[in-house]
Amino acid sequence: MLTLYHSPRSRSTAILTLLAAMDALDRVEVREVSITRFDGQGAPDPRNPHPEGKVPLLVHDGVAIWERAAILLYLTDLFPESGLGVPAGDRLRGRYLSWLAWYAGVMEPVMIHDAAGLAHPFLSATFRGMAEMRDRLSTALAEGPWLVGDRYTAADLLCSSPYLWFRDLDPGCERIRDWVARCAAHPARAAALERDERALAA
Amino acid sequence: MLTLYHSPRSRSTAILTLLAAMDALDRVEVREVSITRFDGQGAPDPRNPHPEGKVPLLVHDGVAIWERAAILLYLTDLFPESGLGVPAGDRLRGRYLSWLAWYAGVMEPVMIHDAAGLAHPFLSATFRGMAEMRDRLSTALAEGPWLVGDRYTAADLLCSSPYLWFRDLDPGCERIRDWVARCAAHPARAAALERDERALAA
Repeated sequence: MLTLYHSPRSRSTAILTLLAAMDALDRVEVREVSITRFDGQGAPDPRNPHPEGKVPLLVHDGVAIWERAAILLYLTDLFPESGLGVPAGDRLRGRYLSWLAWYAGVMEPVMIHDAAGLAHPFLSATFRGMAEMRDRLSTALAEGPWLVGDRYTAADLLCSSPYLWFRDLDPGCERIRDWVARCAAHPARAAALERDERALAA
Repeated sequence: MLTLYHSPRSRSTAILTLLAAMDALDRVEVREVSITRFDGQGAPDPRNPHPEGKVPLLVHDGVAIWERAAILLYLTDLFPESGLGVPAGDRLRGRYLSWLAWYAGVMEPVMIHDAAGLAHPFLSATFRGMAEMRDRLSTALAEGPWLVGDRYTAADLLCSSPYLWFRDLDPGCERIRDWVARCAAHPARAAALERDERALAA
């Protein structure tokens, strides 16, 4: 059994988007829980098994899976027929894994450091900065419309997510801007957002 | 063909350690390149195809794979018989993926923020801090000697790596300290360090 601990309009909406894109929403029990929001509103939910009260958390037959990069990879491997991932054995599998890990280990930290106005030699030595981050995306998107191969995958979903979340965050270059627009136009995004609004209204 | 761009005594020594643990060093061509060190010494190597001059970078049949979490996962999936990973289909696969992603997305940022003496509400909201990080490791290690199942995997290798690198970094609790000692005692670590010393001497 698959259970997703989810909070509407949060980081876990990316997982909902993936499930909608895979047409797999009916294969997962979605449990809405409260979280502490970025502005300090809200509170961790005692029903959420995540030790820090975060979402998303996926539980598969009793085993907890956390971190969005891991959950997206796990789900795309679990439902390979959906075409939202890159299966093991495909020559682009490594590129797919790299974008997911890069999002977690570089892109998100760099964006948070920038938003917080933090600078330090340790940060630039380890993560580099916004310019290098944009260069990576832009160089990859010069080769084609998506990050891996010729179709939208969970790597696009995850790496575009901050731009879809913070709509006034300018990608800083036309090529990334166009890709963000392509990701935003995926019908699964509208489906996930609608589901979130229904959950908030209920 | 597999090529690893590596710099002795660097983050990529973890990949060398994995290859030694898998007895797979002869299946990868290791190319030593220079990098800018944490203290500012050294310089990016023009022979290193990594766009930011970082290591490790793995190239498999022309496809670049970057970020340690992705490279470790890719290699353990490529050589499943080594037993250093957790294969797809195993019920603990999700836990394995989670620790790798958590290292990249939480543990390393938290340690860097702490080392740099940085604090900010955005950092604690996103990554939490050293106390939460220790709690995660300590809780997991209360269940058994290794992070996933009953044996040493690439998840242990990656998550223990900062403690093995910065030897005066105290894990802050006996249980983590003992696990770090178990990871440090793996014969593959000595083999990788010896290889690095030979490369530096040459």
